[in-house]
Amino acid sequence: MITLNDVYIIGAGETKFGELWERSLRELATEAGLRAIESAGIYSKDVEVLYGSNTLGGAINAQNDIGGLISDFTGLAHNNIPAISVEASTASGGAAVREAYLGIRSGEYNVAAVGGVEKLTDLYGSEVLDLTSTLLDSEWEGFFGATPAAIAALVAQKYMKDFNVDHESLAMMSVNDHMNASKNPDAHYRNVLTVEGAVSSTMVAEPLGMMDCSPASDGAAAIILASEEYVKKNKIHGIKILASAVAQDYLALHSRKSVYRFDSTVVAARNAFKKSGLKPDDISFAEIHDSYSIYGLIELEDLGFAKKGEAKKLLPDDIKLDGRIPVNPSGGLKAKGNPFGATGVGQFVEAFQQLNGKAKDRQVKSPANALLHSMAVSGSTSVVHILEGN
Amino acid sequence: MITLNDVYIIGAGETKFGELWERSLRELATEAGLRAIESAGIYSKDVEVLYGSNTLGGAINAQNDIGGLISDFTGLAHNNIPAISVEASTASGGAAVREAYLGIRSGEYNVAAVGGVEKLTDLYGSEVLDLTSTLLDSEWEGFFGATPAAIAALVAQKYMKDFNVDHESLAMMSVNDHMNASKNPDAHYRNVLTVEGAVSSTMVAEPLGMMDCSPASDGAAAIILASEEYVKKNKIHGIKILASAVAQDYLALHSRKSVYRFDSTVVAARNAFKKSGLKPDDISFAEIHDSYSIYGLIELEDLGFAKKGEAKKLLPDDIKLDGRIPVNPSGGLKAKGNPFGATGVGQFVEAFQQLNGKAKDRQVKSPANALLHSMAVSGSTSVVHILEGN
Repeated sequence: MITLNDVYIIGAGETKFGELWERSLRELATEAGLRAIESAGIYSKDVEVLYGSNTLGGAINAQNDIGGLISDFTGLAHNNIPAISVEASTASGGAAVREAYLGIRSGEYNVAAVGGVEKLTDLYGSEVLDLTSTLLDSEWEGFFGATPAAIAALVAQKYMKDFNVDHESLAMMSVNDHMNASKNPDAHYRNVLTVEGAVSSTMVAEPLGMMDCSPASDGAAAIILASEEYVKKNKIHGIKILASAVAQDYLALHSRKSVYRFDSTVVAARNAFKKSGLKPDDISFAEIHDSYSIYGLIELEDLGFAKKGEAKKLLPDDIKLDGRIPVNPSGGLKAKGNPFGATGVGQFVEAFQQLNGKAKDRQVKSPANALLHSMAVSGSTSVVHILEGN
Repeated sequence: MITLNDVYIIGAGETKFGELWERSLRELATEAGLRAIESAGIYSKDVEVLYGSNTLGGAINAQNDIGGLISDFTGLAHNNIPAISVEASTASGGAAVREAYLGIRSGEYNVAAVGGVEKLTDLYGSEVLDLTSTLLDSEWEGFFGATPAAIAALVAQKYMKDFNVDHESLAMMSVNDHMNASKNPDAHYRNVLTVEGAVSSTMVAEPLGMMDCSPASDGAAAIILASEEYVKKNKIHGIKILASAVAQDYLALHSRKSVYRFDSTVVAARNAFKKSGLKPDDISFAEIHDSYSIYGLIELEDLGFAKKGEAKKLLPDDIKLDGRIPVNPSGGLKAKGNPFGATGVGQFVEAFQQLNGKAKDRQVKSPANALLHSMAVSGSTSVVHILEGN
């Protein structure tokens, strides 16, 4: 197998994340899509395939076939280009980008659009809770009352006991997210959070409080990918995808080899580093899937930035915007927000801005590259991408 | 772009389609998957990626992330190989195969499994009806009471009037499906149907009766794809995928250029024929997405087997098992059954058996190739594959 098709990100756009009561799924997707196309400096007719990413639209919005919906409403359907939806639970965004990447690598497409969208606030909180349990193993977890938050709490209990980690350490992940989000106009929550405020927030599932949990957000994000051939021919400046990797673990927590090591993350990261030729120490900044504060710590370890049980040593200083390894300059899932299908795509929007030096107040200093990590609820799927800056 | 990676189907398996009350989603998927692996003569550990196909599991079975579920229950998760779900409404099966095909073409994988599964009978009929409307444009079709059957009926009314086609012609599609299904042990309905019986069946949406509509089925189907390199190295006999194409039209019927020409099918077929170097006259047999009898006629035209309005000329003789262009030797959606996520994958199972000369009573005589067509509800997505026999 010989291939010459490296893949570049040439455009990116997103809506504000938040409680967007007055806006529909299709409106959000279209706004993000058009911003991405505009940012790429291409025309809609140049797009050769659309990959949609969404997680719960069928249940919340009575709308499946989100790829088809976006294609219809953006007018891409006019050219009859393919529109496919990719779902990998809350890792759908990263997974959709990867499918577009493979499509271009295969030589089938030169320009691909990826659009992620989710509208979680169209339902009451308890209804959303029920629906997020459909992302777990329903028969062995969901039907017995387990929710994603309850599982994260179990993991946190065991992790905190075994490694002598206190709630304050977990809280520092959320504090870091809120600090960065305060500088991100697209973020769901822009308030600065203190460790004291975080640990005293309303309990959700012991030991996790409200400030340890990412919110249910609405929002959309889109990026445009192009082949090396296309980028060179059109003299477009793009961000190169150095590596793309995805790995899977058992869906049900009880089948896993470890409760607080996510093997999907370990394997995806290992494969991505191998493909990129880089090591964790070489990474300029990372966007990680900290849907719960505890997961942020675990992921820093499983991605290779700290040894197991030692992520706390990176907090709070090393992960700050001007730290050794800035984490979630966007504000992360806790504060930028977590509109499932859009979350992973939104990480690419942040990286596109950062690597082009256009992240303004939250700009990481001269980043050479970025690592992006998208994960299914409690670690069953992980998608890792490594991007190269300029 | 240079690539040497042709893609072959090396194994296929499915469950019986039907009302499988006593069997769970995961059981069905596992049975089909293990049959496919056994048929390929490989081990589970040889599989490098899993693509899941499912349409309504989130709503019907409270289970999203079907790729993850299959990976978990089949034990593939043990090796941490990627598991991704693909959704393109009722074209999910064909779309999932295509993603696996692109993954291998890209050089990323040598062996890919595709598993489609659906359990539609876990709900009452009217509930299923509500859910199938989530595959339409919800805001502009579903919320106003349109269902897939109602839309098919609108299309049928206009088609029958403009081209002077009677109900008997439509019925002949169903009659052909039932005749072939009577010879298929995996089929949902194995009874032989007469034209008189078909046209006098209970009305669903005028002019379409029960015998013009595919049933809500349970079932699973799986295939194993492998790269040219893998097939040669292991001296495996495979069925080559000559062409893979997908195209999209507007989701909402009212936005289409024509009510009874499915441009997604026209474009996907045109691209597939171009890639394969074949013409419609060269095709040995076809499996088409006749979820409604009227769609069978329209698809025969849009795939290039007849001019617009003239599909009736192919009925009933040309489409029979020993006719000029045998259609749906499996029994098609009407009689083999329509478990959405499994339907398109099931077409590959049939083609694998036919092209290997193992379809027994329903064997098409010495087929040189096969065309497979998977479609989203009312024509918004079409996936066309052309396979080469031995």
